[in-house]
Amino acid sequence: MGLEQVKIVLVGPLYGGNFGSVCRAMANMGLTSLRVVDPHTELNWEDARKMACHARHVLDDHETYTDLATAIADCVMVVGTSGLAGLYRQHAQAPRAVASELLSMSEEGPVAYVFGREDNGLCNDELALCHRIVQIPTHAETPSLNLAQAVLLCCYELFLVGGDYAPPEEKSAFAESAQRERMFSIWHDLLLDIGFMKEDKATHMMQGIRRVMARGALTCDDVQIMMGVARQMQWAARNGVGGKLRGDAG
Amino acid sequence: MGLEQVKIVLVGPLYGGNFGSVCRAMANMGLTSLRVVDPHTELNWEDARKMACHARHVLDDHETYTDLATAIADCVMVVGTSGLAGLYRQHAQAPRAVASELLSMSEEGPVAYVFGREDNGLCNDELALCHRIVQIPTHAETPSLNLAQAVLLCCYELFLVGGDYAPPEEKSAFAESAQRERMFSIWHDLLLDIGFMKEDKATHMMQGIRRVMARGALTCDDVQIMMGVARQMQWAARNGVGGKLRGDAG
Repeated sequence: MGLEQVKIVLVGPLYGGNFGSVCRAMANMGLTSLRVVDPHTELNWEDARKMACHARHVLDDHETYTDLATAIADCVMVVGTSGLAGLYRQHAQAPRAVASELLSMSEEGPVAYVFGREDNGLCNDELALCHRIVQIPTHAETPSLNLAQAVLLCCYELFLVGGDYAPPEEKSAFAESAQRERMFSIWHDLLLDIGFMKEDKATHMMQGIRRVMARGALTCDDVQIMMGVARQMQWAARNGVGGKLRGDAG
Repeated sequence: MGLEQVKIVLVGPLYGGNFGSVCRAMANMGLTSLRVVDPHTELNWEDARKMACHARHVLDDHETYTDLATAIADCVMVVGTSGLAGLYRQHAQAPRAVASELLSMSEEGPVAYVFGREDNGLCNDELALCHRIVQIPTHAETPSLNLAQAVLLCCYELFLVGGDYAPPEEKSAFAESAQRERMFSIWHDLLLDIGFMKEDKATHMMQGIRRVMARGALTCDDVQIMMGVARQMQWAARNGVGGKLRGDAG
């Protein structure tokens, strides 16, 4: 699968906590291959391990390089990230825009997503090695993203395109019109029976009931529940059990 | 604007570092209103301030509540987040799917996005107070997201719908076909002049050159640069300056 060919490349990371959080974010989004260029000599590996949580395998398997050119030498496409305006950045793309092309290139060989130092990002010489520049959407007044947060957003967009993700789905099918009408018909009879409305106002009152119950899409399960409620209320009203059952249980 | 009406609600946060990172992530995505329900008594506020960075205003302005019902009492729509399968969760939606509706409801009044405890998430009683349940897409084997990372992804999807964000754009217009053809015609003449190709192979060779230069979309700036290069090469070849200029400078 394409995601396995995506190398996350960190250039000059300073903080162990960020390093570990990057590992966790990658694993959350199905990425496992991490390359590190010239990490800070005092990077705290204890912090890194702590923040990596269940992504220890990403941390343990990371590869270290002395410079970016070597780290990406085998990559057929290289995307660099940049937060600032300036040289190269006027041609920047959003992470969502670049995700499909990167994954499609990953069928041809390794591809890289490169992130710069916490304090200074990537320098111009490093950006020049990248085939595309990505700028993450942020609020104009507080644009500076934490390193692991930046990695997460880029990985998230890749995962949505190439990951083993199926959007959550309603387990129950949507109710068909005839089924909904059976439900409303049962409620109609109930509301007449219990004296909530009279025959001459029934159409008007039922419009209100329909508005509340059917504003969103109704599933078959939803309709079953609301039919069950109406039938039980009708039974309770006819048998005069209101209040008694609750009292019996108490 | 809609984003101002979105309240991020943290239920029972444990760690100051996460709390501060949530503030930073919110500010990055243009959100500033944070409500906290029953924070851990030993939450480390020093860590929180450190991780909040430039989002100190979000941290300083947060409001504290004793229970979730009170924290969301004024909200016209409440979205709860859940990472696990189970009761309520089979009707979960993705953050991207819920973003438009939440922002559109925020025109009517405050809306809430609720996140649970780092260790246990939201309990069923809390999820029952939510009008929608969101489940963030993650890799099946490492689904557990850091709290601040979860907040970031949900805020990011809101920001893309309702934020002051314009996708990066090419400053230079895309070149029209006639302009591209002028460029290739200059290169054609140059490559004949310098003896790179002969007239009888020119069409074939130019196909290769076209493939390289015009694989992606070419802007007017791109075309200007490549025409300039060809013209200068032609001039240099005719005047026999190759090597000399560099030597002169050295």
